[in-house]
Amino acid sequence: MGPMQETPLPVLVHVCVTCRREGDDPEAPRQGSRLRDALVGLLPDGMTLQPVECLGNCKRSCTVALSAQGSWTYVFGDLTAESGPDVVTGARLLAHSTDGLMPWRGRPEPFKRSMIARIPPIQPLKDAAE
Amino acid sequence: MGPMQETPLPVLVHVCVTCRREGDDPEAPRQGSRLRDALVGLLPDGMTLQPVECLGNCKRSCTVALSAQGSWTYVFGDLTAESGPDVVTGARLLAHSTDGLMPWRGRPEPFKRSMIARIPPIQPLKDAAE
Repeated sequence: MGPMQETPLPVLVHVCVTCRREGDDPEAPRQGSRLRDALVGLLPDGMTLQPVECLGNCKRSCTVALSAQGSWTYVFGDLTAESGPDVVTGARLLAHSTDGLMPWRGRPEPFKRSMIARIPPIQPLKDAAE
Repeated sequence: MGPMQETPLPVLVHVCVTCRREGDDPEAPRQGSRLRDALVGLLPDGMTLQPVECLGNCKRSCTVALSAQGSWTYVFGDLTAESGPDVVTGARLLAHSTDGLMPWRGRPEPFKRSMIARIPPIQPLKDAAE
């Protein structure tokens, strides 16, 4: 197998749509909701966008979680309504991972600074392939 | 189906063994490692303890992640080597959940204060049962 998966992993992108940023106008559409809206037109085929009400990372919103069967799950915070392209870049990195980990190299800067958590898969890719 | 699952979900307990607490003696065994050791004798049958090197929550260590097929994944931080019994209580709550969510009621205090993130399952329990 080469360094890239031939068939990308079907990445699931959870976006917290209730996230605000400190100082946001409480009457304005929420940043998390705007980030979700931005992602609708940006995510490549094969990825699924799933809005969620609260990913539990309220202290460092906006928040996105990336997961796929067999891959690690990644939670990123400190995002804004403008983070759509960075989310897509991170999701692509995970989709093309062969070991279920998101490579550090190639991560957008906010994804290097603002990882909230990463969780191993219940059944790793390698086990699944056996 | 009653309010409790008859067969508990097989909860996977990830413990970051590289976590230290601020001010810890760098020569001493790490708190995360000591928490793992404590859990060895505490987890009920059917649960799996998995040490991990870094769950990405270094700013609020020690860290534990609880997951099960079809359930939400929960990451808790600000724990110590003495948090074993609280981790067991939280893991039991998740194991007996019928909707894949950890109920708020019954959570140990540190689990109410120090949720780092919660992530929906890739395939929820209800879908899996259909």
